[in-house]
Amino acid sequence: MERAQRAQLALLLEVAGTPKPGNVDRHRDLDELRFEHFLAGAVGAYPGLVMAANGEAVGPAFERAVRGMAAQEGDNTQFGALLLLVPLVRAAQTDLAPATVERIVEETTVADAAAFYRAFDHVDVFVDEPPDNLDDLDVRRGSDAVPALEDRGLTLSGVLAAGVPGDDVAREWVTGFERSFSAADRLAAADGPVTERTASTFLSLLAERPDTLVATRHGKSVAMEVMERARALHEREAISTDRAAVDSFADDLVARGINPGTTADLTAAGLFIALERGTLTV
Amino acid sequence: MERAQRAQLALLLEVAGTPKPGNVDRHRDLDELRFEHFLAGAVGAYPGLVMAANGEAVGPAFERAVRGMAAQEGDNTQFGALLLLVPLVRAAQTDLAPATVERIVEETTVADAAAFYRAFDHVDVFVDEPPDNLDDLDVRRGSDAVPALEDRGLTLSGVLAAGVPGDDVAREWVTGFERSFSAADRLAAADGPVTERTASTFLSLLAERPDTLVATRHGKSVAMEVMERARALHEREAISTDRAAVDSFADDLVARGINPGTTADLTAAGLFIALERGTLTV
Repeated sequence: MERAQRAQLALLLEVAGTPKPGNVDRHRDLDELRFEHFLAGAVGAYPGLVMAANGEAVGPAFERAVRGMAAQEGDNTQFGALLLLVPLVRAAQTDLAPATVERIVEETTVADAAAFYRAFDHVDVFVDEPPDNLDDLDVRRGSDAVPALEDRGLTLSGVLAAGVPGDDVAREWVTGFERSFSAADRLAAADGPVTERTASTFLSLLAERPDTLVATRHGKSVAMEVMERARALHEREAISTDRAAVDSFADDLVARGINPGTTADLTAAGLFIALERGTLTV
Repeated sequence: MERAQRAQLALLLEVAGTPKPGNVDRHRDLDELRFEHFLAGAVGAYPGLVMAANGEAVGPAFERAVRGMAAQEGDNTQFGALLLLVPLVRAAQTDLAPATVERIVEETTVADAAAFYRAFDHVDVFVDEPPDNLDDLDVRRGSDAVPALEDRGLTLSGVLAAGVPGDDVAREWVTGFERSFSAADRLAAADGPVTERTASTFLSLLAERPDTLVATRHGKSVAMEVMERARALHEREAISTDRAAVDSFADDLVARGINPGTTADLTAAGLFIALERGTLTV
């Protein structure tokens, strides 16, 4: 299996991991977002992942991955996951280590930032309002924001740095993909089939920081509440000892439309790293 | 989405279809064969599907697809499905119609047959004993059988014709992929999400002929019994009206180790045709 295929498999294993409270998983669909949309998203993202594996620039590879991912009826399935996977796949060409991916990030250009903005033309991504002085750089403007971006000479790493705090995918870009690597270690250390390891890693990530997609959509206090409940379940290893409690947590999140998508993105990144290192095999 | 991607998506949707009694599906694993093995099989098969989409010869494209599919720990996941998909993908380059795929089949060569035999080197496929006079052509000999094959000048279509009756994947090759096209029509006509349409189409196929993998492993009378039970469930539309009855059928098949794999292969072929025609969208 080639590197880009491992990244595609990471996307598939992420959505198959169950239970992943609040998210689409092997055993759950949401109203408008179904399991098959994630399968099609992973299929469509592949050419962009191949570009990254071949050493092409991060921005264009990401845009290509998103364009392919979005060619299904569920709209945004794996935007955040791809924003983590693309630099990781690029880094793995040399050495899949925090220092290497930090260098890949630092080397991103204004052209990469422009491609990142164009990616928003392909898909609706839920993001927060920009600060007042950054209206012309609102990512929701997509390619319309490219001239403003070029005027200011912002690189892709600069764009993402501006997204922290408030977006824990962007935070990975400024922290050497700290939680992605940590997720990979947890996946490697966990027991059982990969779908269960994925679930327990997801829950451990949800337990350690408030999910930023939840915070953006539902407010910080809801995100904190979700984190606290995840922590309580994680501490007593409820996935193996009290599955009913995890399922009831999942039911509640789904009923309230709470979808910890950032945590799923980090899980996908961890899956890729673990597959790449061979510490997780299928 | 490109043609080879649609074939890959067909493999993924097939395994996601649920309930598919006796087989791995979105909600079931078997002891040694798990959902994630099928995900990895679909990822690995892709380069061979690309070869077929690019018009390369059926045998080498199939061998490449099988080699990639087999690079996971569940061993044989999608051998039969690929034996249907590869000529269908080739045919779709011109026109995805029975006459075109018949022509693709007729044009296969001794070299295609040799590649087909080499595919058995990559994976354990459960097949019946060959007739006494065909011992030297036993597919289980893999590439060791290639000299005998070349001596006799057997083409791939000749090899598969010899597999009928007894193998309903091979039967597709001599009937213009009759049941694959019929499965596509049923998928298009069915209601509901694609996972349910896949399940009802699978059950309708299982209801119409004894599954040949079941017959090979467990005998003709078991295969007939499975068909009769599937027919009774299918006739009263149990997937939508009495899911518990379908689940209990599935439990029984799993407990007895009965795995209607040929029917799953036909379902995957039907999914590709329906995706290719746009009568099924995701």
